[in-house]
Amino acid sequence: MLAGLPPEAGLYASIVPILLYAVFGTSRALAVGPVAVISLMTATTLGGIAAQGTAGYAVAALTLAFLSGAILLAMGIFRLGFLANFLSHPVIAGFITASGLIIAASQVKHILGIKASGETLYHLVLSIWEHLGETNWITVVIGVTATGFLFWVRKGMKPMLRRYGAGATLADIATKAGPVAAVAVTTLVVWALGLGDRGVRIVGDVPQSLPPLTLPDLSLDLVSALMVPALLISLIGFVESISVAQTLAAKKRQRIDPDQELIGLGTANLGAAFTGGFPVTGGFSRSVVNFDAGAETPAAGAFTAVGLAIAALALTPLIYFLPQATLAATIIVAVLSLVDFSILKRSWMYSKADFFAVLATILLTLGFGVEVGVTAGVILSVFLHLYKTTKPHIAEVGLVPGTQHFRNIRRHSVETLPHVLTLRIDESLYFANARFLEDHIYDRVATDKQLRHVVLMCSAVNEIDLSALESLEAVNERLKSFGIKLHLSEVKGPVMDRLQRQHFLSDLTGRVFLSQYDAFRTLRDEPPQP
Amino acid sequence: MLAGLPPEAGLYASIVPILLYAVFGTSRALAVGPVAVISLMTATTLGGIAAQGTAGYAVAALTLAFLSGAILLAMGIFRLGFLANFLSHPVIAGFITASGLIIAASQVKHILGIKASGETLYHLVLSIWEHLGETNWITVVIGVTATGFLFWVRKGMKPMLRRYGAGATLADIATKAGPVAAVAVTTLVVWALGLGDRGVRIVGDVPQSLPPLTLPDLSLDLVSALMVPALLISLIGFVESISVAQTLAAKKRQRIDPDQELIGLGTANLGAAFTGGFPVTGGFSRSVVNFDAGAETPAAGAFTAVGLAIAALALTPLIYFLPQATLAATIIVAVLSLVDFSILKRSWMYSKADFFAVLATILLTLGFGVEVGVTAGVILSVFLHLYKTTKPHIAEVGLVPGTQHFRNIRRHSVETLPHVLTLRIDESLYFANARFLEDHIYDRVATDKQLRHVVLMCSAVNEIDLSALESLEAVNERLKSFGIKLHLSEVKGPVMDRLQRQHFLSDLTGRVFLSQYDAFRTLRDEPPQP
Repeated sequence: MLAGLPPEAGLYASIVPILLYAVFGTSRALAVGPVAVISLMTATTLGGIAAQGTAGYAVAALTLAFLSGAILLAMGIFRLGFLANFLSHPVIAGFITASGLIIAASQVKHILGIKASGETLYHLVLSIWEHLGETNWITVVIGVTATGFLFWVRKGMKPMLRRYGAGATLADIATKAGPVAAVAVTTLVVWALGLGDRGVRIVGDVPQSLPPLTLPDLSLDLVSALMVPALLISLIGFVESISVAQTLAAKKRQRIDPDQELIGLGTANLGAAFTGGFPVTGGFSRSVVNFDAGAETPAAGAFTAVGLAIAALALTPLIYFLPQATLAATIIVAVLSLVDFSILKRSWMYSKADFFAVLATILLTLGFGVEVGVTAGVILSVFLHLYKTTKPHIAEVGLVPGTQHFRNIRRHSVETLPHVLTLRIDESLYFANARFLEDHIYDRVATDKQLRHVVLMCSAVNEIDLSALESLEAVNERLKSFGIKLHLSEVKGPVMDRLQRQHFLSDLTGRVFLSQYDAFRTLRDEPPQP
Repeated sequence: MLAGLPPEAGLYASIVPILLYAVFGTSRALAVGPVAVISLMTATTLGGIAAQGTAGYAVAALTLAFLSGAILLAMGIFRLGFLANFLSHPVIAGFITASGLIIAASQVKHILGIKASGETLYHLVLSIWEHLGETNWITVVIGVTATGFLFWVRKGMKPMLRRYGAGATLADIATKAGPVAAVAVTTLVVWALGLGDRGVRIVGDVPQSLPPLTLPDLSLDLVSALMVPALLISLIGFVESISVAQTLAAKKRQRIDPDQELIGLGTANLGAAFTGGFPVTGGFSRSVVNFDAGAETPAAGAFTAVGLAIAALALTPLIYFLPQATLAATIIVAVLSLVDFSILKRSWMYSKADFFAVLATILLTLGFGVEVGVTAGVILSVFLHLYKTTKPHIAEVGLVPGTQHFRNIRRHSVETLPHVLTLRIDESLYFANARFLEDHIYDRVATDKQLRHVVLMCSAVNEIDLSALESLEAVNERLKSFGIKLHLSEVKGPVMDRLQRQHFLSDLTGRVFLSQYDAFRTLRDEPPQP
């Protein structure tokens, strides 16, 4: 219902996708189905396309699942799983916190018993404010009581039970049974007092059937409107799923293949598209249940699917009188536990770049929606990473006495030679910092008339691209005209292989030393030049 | 005229900008004015906005100069000079080669004496083909003769003069006088034979005046149409200018400040916008002349401006009969010397990533124009750079016997310890490769039951961002559960400073060693664990 779809869609979105993932995926414990974040993204995407409850809305949801499945499948086939790595931890944390707030805000209307809608926090709050006069007070009592109860179950009940002597296992079970109790009690109350006739919205009829065969709508208009959201849903769904799968696999020293996972999730979403569902991915809590129960083979998924099919056929009448306010309370309590602003403090202390990425993601997601927030977060983190590499740290190093180890002269007390300048470049050399290195060397050399040798210690240089090679050639020529030799030391294998394909090494005025200590010893013993 | 503007605009674009750059710029030799590449970009941009020769075209040129000036000035004030570093050498080389071809093709119409236009090579060739019937044969004779003569002056004359005993200086002067001779002879021929009346297009009247006061048109429509081209013209103009300025400054061990250069070029362009000009930047050949003549102070610029003002007032009647075909021949010969496909071969041999960046830049510039080509080149080179860092080289290292130096066990014959795994990570650790490292370590550890210690040698790790830190925490926890200790060695100062702000170092199961040799010695002597 978070996705704006009837409850049976959630059941349908679980049955066939689980089976398909069991065939094509690599994780033994992962459970595929609707998850909160993806459902919310579905709701915000479809909100702009069609009205909730209409046939167009349901078809758009199928189409979104189809596109998402096709994108994931294509990414898997073209081995593009690495793209998900560009969603950094801070961006994901910021995105989850912000969407948790939006999801919670979107449920407030059910607690108040009013109609309201909006894609961003601002529009949601505004819309709730406008409809505030329509509040149904019986619904509020049910919703607020349920919310308060569920918060207390999470925070207060377990310590209390322990205090009264209950065992840890019993306390755990009681905590997990809290939401079930809330659902059962409020359903009974609504049924017994006939509150459904007094304006309390209830779930109502859920069709008793197996997943229907459905077709997505592939008209150009709809596809082009859904393409970008589908891409984002795919990427975020994939990141969430693979994080869960890897966490669980690692506990048993099993392996997950990201590209095969893409294929598994892709087919699962295609399955959802043709059986009345909406976009799905691997969820954390449901997978942990699988894992705890000892799921060791894909058959676990098949059994889950059978169980859900039985539920779809037999158990749906039981929730007819379930008030929507109780569902909203369950969702609010669950998602608020995901909201975690401590990432702001942690990233502020550790690295300003990470801090700005997470702050931008949170603010833009709240203000302009998930797509804008996540896209801006990714672009900002890539840009800040690149920016840092444009002005690399270049340390002047000397020999730590009694060792063969070289460290920064500003941090350690080290030996240096007056006619030798040794620079350790703390970055790969590529186009964005090639000119910076040139400038740095010229500046340093211009002030020191004793110099006869410049050694570039390349232990941290993982790549030298063509732009940087041309800069090094220029540095070599320039230093030559000043009577200074340029040497390299500790050049790594892969970098050296590449340099040997060009004439730079034969033009080099100095030598390439295997280790910096070799360079130090050789140049120390060399007679000073005229 | 390359910019599609009357010749006097070129004069106007030189006078005031030179003076302004002399006040605000930092290079003593740089000469600011119209340059081929920027003029061509101006022509291709304005071609889509207004017809050549109309008042709207000239005003659009002023507006383009104004926007470009404002962008450069803003970049200078906000110290964004580093952005130019993202134009890599291969992208610039590809862009120059492709635009050289487009410029040459755009001049062919003047050689044939026909009208033709087009922004891309394909459209140009098509347009020339359509108008081929209108060819003026007298123009062709002048154009082809002038082109042939100028090519011969460049390639054949100097060796010939030397063979007949002329001195090197004399041969040089004769080579440089070639274009002047071509201009003088063809002008005289056209005047003497009255060819202007027989369909040969001539330069005609050039107003004898100082730069007029003009106003750019800042209407929203025009500004929004010109914004992206103005940004690209600014960036490319800046890169060209700063390359020239730094090359010349370095020869005299002078310094260039990129951000101040932006301010100098910004004010120069604003000056061009208000005095009948168009976008300008520092040009190579004109600056070299300045430098050779010994320009040591900004006064050199002021003298040039005075000289150009005199030319604008007195000398313009002399070029009335100059045939446009001769101008076209001069341009073609000059730009074809910039076309250099050897960058393709060089980059292919050195690095495939550079090769694809240059190839994409050339093909897309030829096919879709300069903006598309350069933008694609920059995005592709950034993406390929990032892609390389997502799967970093991780080497297993051992001690080179008789030294304290550690190298890859696959490339060198080294000593290792059976219960210690030492991995040298050849990349900064950040969000895009954090998961890769985790996977790599788990894979490696899973196959080796003897292991008791994993040492990460961080000599090439220039940054550990928050995502990577969280991965390292996960690795630490995981290895702990296997009874393996995680150690770090050779962590750099700036990285260590940052790690100390978090609890990772106190949670670490192992130690942080100053040098890898320390780690090796300590772990070798440690008693094997149960």
